[in-house]
Amino acid sequence: MSPKATATKQDTKAALLQAGMDLMMEKGYTNTGINDVLNTLGIPKGSFYHHFDSKENYAVEIIRYFDAAAVEMLTRTLKNSNQTPLNRIRTFCEEKKAKLASQSCSRGCLVGNLSQEMSDQSEVLRLELSRVMTNWQNIVAECIKEGQKIKEIKGDRTAHQLAELFYSGWSGAVLRAKTLKSIEPIDTFIDLMLNDVLKA
Amino acid sequence: MSPKATATKQDTKAALLQAGMDLMMEKGYTNTGINDVLNTLGIPKGSFYHHFDSKENYAVEIIRYFDAAAVEMLTRTLKNSNQTPLNRIRTFCEEKKAKLASQSCSRGCLVGNLSQEMSDQSEVLRLELSRVMTNWQNIVAECIKEGQKIKEIKGDRTAHQLAELFYSGWSGAVLRAKTLKSIEPIDTFIDLMLNDVLKA
Repeated sequence: MSPKATATKQDTKAALLQAGMDLMMEKGYTNTGINDVLNTLGIPKGSFYHHFDSKENYAVEIIRYFDAAAVEMLTRTLKNSNQTPLNRIRTFCEEKKAKLASQSCSRGCLVGNLSQEMSDQSEVLRLELSRVMTNWQNIVAECIKEGQKIKEIKGDRTAHQLAELFYSGWSGAVLRAKTLKSIEPIDTFIDLMLNDVLKA
Repeated sequence: MSPKATATKQDTKAALLQAGMDLMMEKGYTNTGINDVLNTLGIPKGSFYHHFDSKENYAVEIIRYFDAAAVEMLTRTLKNSNQTPLNRIRTFCEEKKAKLASQSCSRGCLVGNLSQEMSDQSEVLRLELSRVMTNWQNIVAECIKEGQKIKEIKGDRTAHQLAELFYSGWSGAVLRAKTLKSIEPIDTFIDLMLNDVLKA
């Protein structure tokens, strides 16, 4: 295959992943039709099935595509050695909050949305979502551990426990912001978590 | 209409609400077909449309039906004057945890599930879900306020803020338990929230 043909194929796959991610983020898995994606992009069905063998497999790849960007953002903020660990967590929260506010508190997080919708419907998706969640939590836990070492973050709980509470609280606050169409649950979460719960 | 006919009508409506609630809890709004509900119950379509004018309106009534039981449980645990406020919150969490564990961490909470799925899809459902969430949070806040009065719960934050963090953390922990198919996020939430975050 010529390099140009390969590039086009990769472009098509990336376009399918991006369009599918946008639709699933907005409408969920069930409400996203493959035909809607294809019509949006003007791509024939055969091309879709060249890249993905089922909707479920397509969703797994969409989760990985979303995860790659999420891990990049988590790494950039939570491993930024120019800030103290607690300030890194604050930067992470503020960046996410700004994005949610710019979307009028809609969409939320693809992984949270699909978890809620699909955990009891597809074991394949549940396992992929669990893997992603656990990895994110581990990145948060590493940052918390660093903060505990320099006594910036409370040391009477394990970094794993604090990261788990942080992640639960964050996911719930995003869900509530999305329902109430208000950023208040996020503000309260950032304030209490950063200034009380984690602070040494 | 005879009293018997009225009773039967009310029975039919209650059966429709219960069956719809079970299905929506398990499969979400989109994946629940009215025909599935009717087939399960052996009720004709006309009878459904006698009680509900649309699927959206049906879901609103299902949310209210779910809410009535939830408020009963919240009131029974969080207004139980035989326990201190912090212990009431612990009882609430432990009862909910036992239920989730008995369902192998599936289903979760109807209001959380529908919020995630439908907040951006139906303004009618979003408003109903917001109303329910806010009412639940207010019941928690009242209990926290009582705990603050007797200095059992930290007083450096408003009861409203603490209730908001509690609710976000709880919703997120349920979501994560459902995805990981593990009760651990709930255990960590109960431990940290009850023994650290709220405790005076």
